[in-house]
Amino acid sequence: MGRWEPNARGRLEQAALELYGERGYEQTTVAEIAKRAGLTERTFFRHFADKREVLFAGAASLQELFVSTASGAPASAAPIDAVAAALEAVAAMFQERRAHSRQRHAVIVANAELQERELIKLASLSTALADTLRGRGVKEPAASLTAEAGVAVFKVAFERWIDADDERDLGHLVRDSLDELKAVTAGHVRP
Amino acid sequence: MGRWEPNARGRLEQAALELYGERGYEQTTVAEIAKRAGLTERTFFRHFADKREVLFAGAASLQELFVSTASGAPASAAPIDAVAAALEAVAAMFQERRAHSRQRHAVIVANAELQERELIKLASLSTALADTLRGRGVKEPAASLTAEAGVAVFKVAFERWIDADDERDLGHLVRDSLDELKAVTAGHVRP
Repeated sequence: MGRWEPNARGRLEQAALELYGERGYEQTTVAEIAKRAGLTERTFFRHFADKREVLFAGAASLQELFVSTASGAPASAAPIDAVAAALEAVAAMFQERRAHSRQRHAVIVANAELQERELIKLASLSTALADTLRGRGVKEPAASLTAEAGVAVFKVAFERWIDADDERDLGHLVRDSLDELKAVTAGHVRP
Repeated sequence: MGRWEPNARGRLEQAALELYGERGYEQTTVAEIAKRAGLTERTFFRHFADKREVLFAGAASLQELFVSTASGAPASAAPIDAVAAALEAVAAMFQERRAHSRQRHAVIVANAELQERELIKLASLSTALADTLRGRGVKEPAASLTAEAGVAVFKVAFERWIDADDERDLGHLVRDSLDELKAVTAGHVRP
């Protein structure tokens, strides 16, 4: 067993994001990440399978939070309200990580392979959310459409949050985007 | 110049789909596709860059039809109605190709790389549709949310059409899925 490394995982993550931003994702090696974090490659591989996983290790907990919040909503809640509760919970989780989220987003948009991986992450999230809604008794196609709507709201609100130069929090943007989707589908938005 | 080959493109496409279904996409070579179609490899490469393009050559015309129909809607139309018109046009285009669409879909779902390519195709479609709506004077985030909603409806309706054992046409399923999305976002659907 290696010696105890205080917050090794967080230090590796931070070092990786810095290097991906400075040199580009493709050009960065695991050896460089470990060195920047003041750790060994062996420690890196105790925490991450490869350099891509540093960027996607959070996908499982994002999905878990989405699904558990939606499935914990009152049984009588409309599916869109179960999804709204999940969006709120997810927004609160991200809110403290805005600088980190921006760094990560800049790395993703600069690399086609990472963008593809991000699309897969969102598609998996939609599938998991639709499963959860069906588990709550929501029929098809309502379950899949509600899940797709929830992921669309998350995606659009997240990009607004990343781009925003003001301090509106992600929770605000998620609520605003959901209201806007409701207005749009009701035909209340005009050119 | 090669001699004139009647419907070479369609024959290559049909041969490729048959072979991908019989042997798997990975295991099929361009030489085998050309042979099955009774054509040469050289003819194949006059029509398609590689064996993957046979499956995605239609993406550009799908996007073009989506975008041109949405941008041709009356200037006063609500964005969701411009998107609904585009969905109708796209549904009519696919309706005559149900057997082909089913064959293609079976190949895509059996291969992770092709599924990724399909997600990219839908993400590009959403981006192009949002651009079109902004060009019609729709503000953000309404433009992006309407585009995402339109692509979600297309995706869900398309999968219902592929899976359906009845003869409901894609236009019907697209209208039904859009109505369902409206009901879901309005909170009218209960578990």
